[in-house]
Amino acid sequence: MKVEVTQENLARALGNVGRVASSRTGLEILNNILIRTEGKQLLLAATNLEIAATERIGAKISSQGSVTVPAKLIYELIHNLPKETITLTTDGATLHITSPSNTATINGVRDDEFPEIPVIDEGNAANLSLSASLFKQAATQTIIAASTDSTRPVLTGVFWHVVDGKLYLAATDGYRLAEKEVSKLESDISAIIPTSTMQEVLRTVSDESASIDLLFDDTQVRFRVGDNEITSRLIDGKFPDYRQLIPASSATSFVAEKQDLVQAAKLASLFSSGSGGNIRIETKPAEENVAISSVASEYGDNNSTLPVASISGEEATVSINSRYLIDALAVIDNGRVSFGYSGKLAPCVIRSVNNVGDYTHIIMPIKS
Amino acid sequence: MKVEVTQENLARALGNVGRVASSRTGLEILNNILIRTEGKQLLLAATNLEIAATERIGAKISSQGSVTVPAKLIYELIHNLPKETITLTTDGATLHITSPSNTATINGVRDDEFPEIPVIDEGNAANLSLSASLFKQAATQTIIAASTDSTRPVLTGVFWHVVDGKLYLAATDGYRLAEKEVSKLESDISAIIPTSTMQEVLRTVSDESASIDLLFDDTQVRFRVGDNEITSRLIDGKFPDYRQLIPASSATSFVAEKQDLVQAAKLASLFSSGSGGNIRIETKPAEENVAISSVASEYGDNNSTLPVASISGEEATVSINSRYLIDALAVIDNGRVSFGYSGKLAPCVIRSVNNVGDYTHIIMPIKS
Repeated sequence: MKVEVTQENLARALGNVGRVASSRTGLEILNNILIRTEGKQLLLAATNLEIAATERIGAKISSQGSVTVPAKLIYELIHNLPKETITLTTDGATLHITSPSNTATINGVRDDEFPEIPVIDEGNAANLSLSASLFKQAATQTIIAASTDSTRPVLTGVFWHVVDGKLYLAATDGYRLAEKEVSKLESDISAIIPTSTMQEVLRTVSDESASIDLLFDDTQVRFRVGDNEITSRLIDGKFPDYRQLIPASSATSFVAEKQDLVQAAKLASLFSSGSGGNIRIETKPAEENVAISSVASEYGDNNSTLPVASISGEEATVSINSRYLIDALAVIDNGRVSFGYSGKLAPCVIRSVNNVGDYTHIIMPIKS
Repeated sequence: MKVEVTQENLARALGNVGRVASSRTGLEILNNILIRTEGKQLLLAATNLEIAATERIGAKISSQGSVTVPAKLIYELIHNLPKETITLTTDGATLHITSPSNTATINGVRDDEFPEIPVIDEGNAANLSLSASLFKQAATQTIIAASTDSTRPVLTGVFWHVVDGKLYLAATDGYRLAEKEVSKLESDISAIIPTSTMQEVLRTVSDESASIDLLFDDTQVRFRVGDNEITSRLIDGKFPDYRQLIPASSATSFVAEKQDLVQAAKLASLFSSGSGGNIRIETKPAEENVAISSVASEYGDNNSTLPVASISGEEATVSINSRYLIDALAVIDNGRVSFGYSGKLAPCVIRSVNNVGDYTHIIMPIKS
C-alpha cells in the first residue's frame, strides 16, 4: 500500500472511527483500526463486535493494500502532526507514516485477523432521514430513561417504532419512561437500538452535521453521518407495551418555570440521599403553591415553596426519586413545564408546556 | 446565633473555605465548616490540620453564636438558593437556614470540638505582597518540579528564599528543577511552603484578584487574597543547595519555536512509554536542525526534524524523559525557547528566550 492523504482528513476520520476500537472483549485485534484502500478511497474501520464504525476519505493511491494498527497510537500520532500531506506505506504488517518533518513506523497486524465489517443490503432495508438537531434532541431525551441492567436486554436500548404514521422513540428502565414523537414516517419500523450505539452516534454528530440517514434490516441498523457510518446490531426481543402506562389525564397538575422546579428538586435532593432519593411533592391549591420537601433524619431536612403559574385538581402528595426528576428536567426545553399526578401510586407525567405531546416523561412514585 | 447574609457572599465564602475541609485524616469534625459571629462579621473557617482557610463576610448580626456543619452540604444548599437574603439561626448544634422560598435544617456539631484556627503574630513576621498574576505564574512554573514522594518532605514543597535582594521560588524532585525570579525584596525570607498549600491558594485566586499578601513566621505562612486567608504550616528542614546544579553555560544549544518543540516532544512521547519516557535529542549543526526520536521496540518508532532559529556548539546527543520536557514547555510563555546541554550526562537547561534569567528549568538526562 502507498497512499497520500491530508492530515486534517485522516485525523478527523481516525477520531470518529477509533473511539469504537476496544479490547474489552479480550480480543487484542479489536484495539486496532483497519486501514484499507478501496478504489480511489481509503477506508478506516473499527469494531467492538457490537458496533462497527467506518469512514472513507479521499486519497491519492499509488498502490493498493491494507493493514491494522493500534487505534489510539495512530490517532495520537496523526493528531499531533502539522497540517501537511501524509504518506502511508506498508511493508508487510508494518506501517510507515511519513510527512515532511516526521517519519514514524508502527508495527501492525495483518488484516486477515480483523473481523468482517457488517454490511446492510440496501435493497431490503427500511430507511429514513432525520435532521441532526432533531436526532440529538430525541436521543438525549430518551437515553436517560433506558436501563443499564443487562438482565433485561430489551430495556437497555431505545425503541424506534411507528404508530399511526408517526415515528416515536421510547425508553424505560421500569422506574421511568421517556417517549419522543419524532416525525411523520411512511415505512414501518420497529427496532430496539442499543443505548451505547445511540451514544456513539451522538458523539459523531457535530454541530455542522446536517442530517443523519438510517437504514434498518431485521437485525442491524446503519447510521450515516456525512462520510461516517456506524453499523450496530439491534437488540432482539419485544419491547414492552409501554404506551398503556402513560396516563391519559392526571387528577392534580401544576405548571411552573422549569428553572424553579430544577432549583427546588436540587435543594430537596441534598437531603434525600439517606432515603433512596425520596422527595415529597405536595400541591396546595388553596395557597396556590407547591411544597417540595425531603428529610434526612441523620443530618437535616429541607422545605421549598415552588412558585407556580397555575395549579388545578385536588390537593395531593406524591414521593419520587429526586435524581429522576433532575434527569428529566435536564433534557426538557427551558420555559414552563407541567407536572401531573394522581395520588401516591399513579405515574407522574412531566411535559414541556411549549411542546405538549412531543415529549412525555413518566416517573413512577416511591410507595411510602 | 441569628444573622442575615446575602446568598452571593455566603456562597462565595463557603466555596473558597469549604474546599479545605476534609476528613482524610479520619477526624469526622474536619468535614465541617465553622460558622461563628465575630463582632459585626461572620467568620467561616475550615481546616485539614495542615491548611486552615478562613473568610469573614459582612452580616447583619442579631445575636452572637457559632456552630459547625458539614462543609459540602451547606455549600451545595447555599449555592442552589436564589440570590436572596438568607437568615441563619442556631438552636444548640442545629442550624436553620431560612430564605423567602426555602427553609432547611442541618444537624451540626458544637464548635468546642473544632480545632483552633492558627494565628500569626503580625508583629514578628516577615511580609510581602505580590500581584496575583505574578504569583499565579511563579507558582505554576515551580509546582510542576516538586516531588510527590513523602520520604523526602523538603522536596514536596516550593522553596521561597532571597538571594542578593531578590526573591526566588524553586522546586525540585531530583530529576528536574524549576527556579523563578519573582521580585526585589528587602526582607530575608527562607521558607518551604507545601505544594498542596500553593495549589489551594492558586484555586482561591480569581482573575479579579489584584494582589496577594503573605506573612511568614518561623513555622507558618499566611496568604491573604481579598477577604480570604489561608494559613499553612511550613515544611521543616533544609532545602538542598540547588543553585550549584544550574550550569553556568552549555556546550551545545539551540533556539526553536516553543510550539514546534512541544509537537516534536509529543510525537516522540507516543513511542517512549516502553523505555521510561526516554526520547533522544540530537543537534546537527552542519544540517542546521535538531532530530528528536524515540523507539518502542514492540510497536514502532518516530523521528522528527525540528526546525530551529539558531544552533550553536558541538554536535551532541542527550536522552531525557518526554514527560518532563512536555511539563516544562507547558508552563513557559509562548514564543522561542532555548535548550542547552553538555553531552549525555550534564543537566539540560530550558529557558524562554523572551525572559532569559527570569525562569530556568533543568532536566537531568537519562543515562544510557
